[in-house]
Amino acid sequence: MALIVQKYGGTSLADTERVKAVAERVVSTSKQGNQVIVVVSAMAGETDKLIKLSHEITDRPDEREMDLLLSSGERVTSALTAMAIQKQGKDAISLTGRQVGIITDSAHTKAMIERIDTSRLKKELDEGRIPVVAGFQGIDEFSNVTTLGRGGSDTSAVAIAAALNADLCEIYTDVEGVYTTDPHMIKEARKLDKISYDEMLEMASLGARVLHGRSVEVAKKFNVPLVIRSSFSSSPGTIVVKEDEEMEKIVVSGVTYDKNQSRITILSVPDRPGIAATLFNAIANADIVVDMIVQNVGSDAKSTDISFTAPVADCGKAFEITKKISDELGAKGVNIKEDIAKVSILGVGMRSHFGIAARMFSSLAEKGINIMMISTSEIKVSCIIDIKQTEEAVKILHGVFNLAG
Amino acid sequence: MALIVQKYGGTSLADTERVKAVAERVVSTSKQGNQVIVVVSAMAGETDKLIKLSHEITDRPDEREMDLLLSSGERVTSALTAMAIQKQGKDAISLTGRQVGIITDSAHTKAMIERIDTSRLKKELDEGRIPVVAGFQGIDEFSNVTTLGRGGSDTSAVAIAAALNADLCEIYTDVEGVYTTDPHMIKEARKLDKISYDEMLEMASLGARVLHGRSVEVAKKFNVPLVIRSSFSSSPGTIVVKEDEEMEKIVVSGVTYDKNQSRITILSVPDRPGIAATLFNAIANADIVVDMIVQNVGSDAKSTDISFTAPVADCGKAFEITKKISDELGAKGVNIKEDIAKVSILGVGMRSHFGIAARMFSSLAEKGINIMMISTSEIKVSCIIDIKQTEEAVKILHGVFNLAG
Repeated sequence: MALIVQKYGGTSLADTERVKAVAERVVSTSKQGNQVIVVVSAMAGETDKLIKLSHEITDRPDEREMDLLLSSGERVTSALTAMAIQKQGKDAISLTGRQVGIITDSAHTKAMIERIDTSRLKKELDEGRIPVVAGFQGIDEFSNVTTLGRGGSDTSAVAIAAALNADLCEIYTDVEGVYTTDPHMIKEARKLDKISYDEMLEMASLGARVLHGRSVEVAKKFNVPLVIRSSFSSSPGTIVVKEDEEMEKIVVSGVTYDKNQSRITILSVPDRPGIAATLFNAIANADIVVDMIVQNVGSDAKSTDISFTAPVADCGKAFEITKKISDELGAKGVNIKEDIAKVSILGVGMRSHFGIAARMFSSLAEKGINIMMISTSEIKVSCIIDIKQTEEAVKILHGVFNLAG
Repeated sequence: MALIVQKYGGTSLADTERVKAVAERVVSTSKQGNQVIVVVSAMAGETDKLIKLSHEITDRPDEREMDLLLSSGERVTSALTAMAIQKQGKDAISLTGRQVGIITDSAHTKAMIERIDTSRLKKELDEGRIPVVAGFQGIDEFSNVTTLGRGGSDTSAVAIAAALNADLCEIYTDVEGVYTTDPHMIKEARKLDKISYDEMLEMASLGARVLHGRSVEVAKKFNVPLVIRSSFSSSPGTIVVKEDEEMEKIVVSGVTYDKNQSRITILSVPDRPGIAATLFNAIANADIVVDMIVQNVGSDAKSTDISFTAPVADCGKAFEITKKISDELGAKGVNIKEDIAKVSILGVGMRSHFGIAARMFSSLAEKGINIMMISTSEIKVSCIIDIKQTEEAVKILHGVFNLAG
């Protein structure tokens, strides 16, 4: 008898017909002799509706109040899903974040799970019930309701799977799995049967938002086998696991892109210790998430140029902060470049294969695509290019690295 | 400094503009030097929407799941209202049924409050915050979410006012107060400035659904001064208090009617002890709420006729049960009469005034209105008449007892 955690996203629970279909899948998994724990998101659109209401009232809603507001959507779906499972003849019980024992820190709207008291879950499973957990939420030590950030139900599911040492955590969504690149853009995109945690982490951070990034970190840390699959088909999906030898033979496993970035450059800053810290502390204090950071030696070797990318929505604020610091430091000036895109290749096999980055650069150059900024990690190479050339660049790289298979 | 509990109903919180208006009233009450506790219902229509979803899934939803489902609406309004108060510059904090310490029994969907742990409320008030309580909900001793039944937020508010010995409990709704009769039917209907708990209880049970009946019981028990007023005007509303001398001078304070009843009569039952108990236990076990019960001596003095009224929706079921018992007991038969209405007069002054009931009967008789059934209490006389004569009867009684003032 396996213990399986199944997480269903908002599109899988968008109306009561879909809730019934989810219940069928749960009951069928249970009838195959498995213990099942269900974790649910809010109905598609609900969270956005609640956010809209809060913004009609104030442009800066208190985060503790925001958490109570937003946590209501998952409570609704957990009750409805439990009813639908009961209707199909299996005993089920809804559990809120508090009832399921998810204790978080007090960082409202982006809380981190500190521990899970699994006693209630174990009791319900022992008594033959299917627990239906309201995802995305927990409580802090003062018994305030907290939420884990957008997409946090993935993290709820993986954390529960880790805490109970589950055999499998299935993430049901509206796509068939993880693809070599965006299938809406490149028709040759191929679904991957398997991907490593590290590749999946890069995928998530690179804008291929299939999974909540933190859920993958937790899965990797506790070695939880993760499957991403569609609730609208019986396709087996993509399994996310620890990398193995076979994986390393495949050099590049995916191409991703992100069109939601702007680049800001601070020119000829006097090169002395602490410059980068000053700048990026100020940026972080404004709650701006910086993506790529590149520092070059400046033209006279006594100064340096620093470029970074930030989300388009924050670039005005980031520019102002950078300008102020530039003046204080006596830099030459600050410029901003919008209409850029980041294109990345990734794969665990890159570690042991030389020349992959060079091949990426030359493939792009051959087609006249100019690279404005480069950043690399062990399993990823990212280039900033003109946004108008995004599709062409993704297509070239998908072909060059034989991803259509 | 007075402590005031203000309860706002669903129509007062129907959209974010109204939520802001509620916040203004709360802040203004606070600025007048009062401590304020706010209790909120769900937005108008939300509870019905959730009930509809549950019925799309199953016709017999589990009551524990129903409670989790339904409790979400008040959590949304408590968070939004707290945000709106904060936006207007006052410190506020939303509190769920659990956080506010409302402990109930485990009778899901119709739980009774057992106690309120007021320590959190006191702490928030001491620290200068305005607590915004999600009404209608509590938790049982096993930490399950419970709800108090439709309209239960009134009871939450009054129970909190009682527990904290508040100076006043204001119930804000979409009517200006309590009227001598239905102002939509009789244009001479007059708003009462004052009414006693007992009269209000009779009003609630007689179909004039301004307040949740249980809230009045709690208010009476703990002597909580209650005001019913509109959130759409500054009219002072109607105050519900312990009866005083002045009230007893007014003989009849209101006329109410209820068109949602049917009458069932069991004819010539052999008159022996336990007959009524057998019948009404069976009816109660079918969850049917019986309103009036009248037992007459039958034609031969060895048998008896029993009539009772039940809501129209339940009358088919009630008829079947009564028929079965009639056969077992060897009664002559059972008949059912639909299209009836109950018209009642009420007032604490009736206790010390003779002839009020007789005057009611003769006023109706003079106009050719036939009375099918009569039931009286200390402060109320009810008559069952033909439903088509309801309006005429209400008009006559409103005039005869000088209610237009």
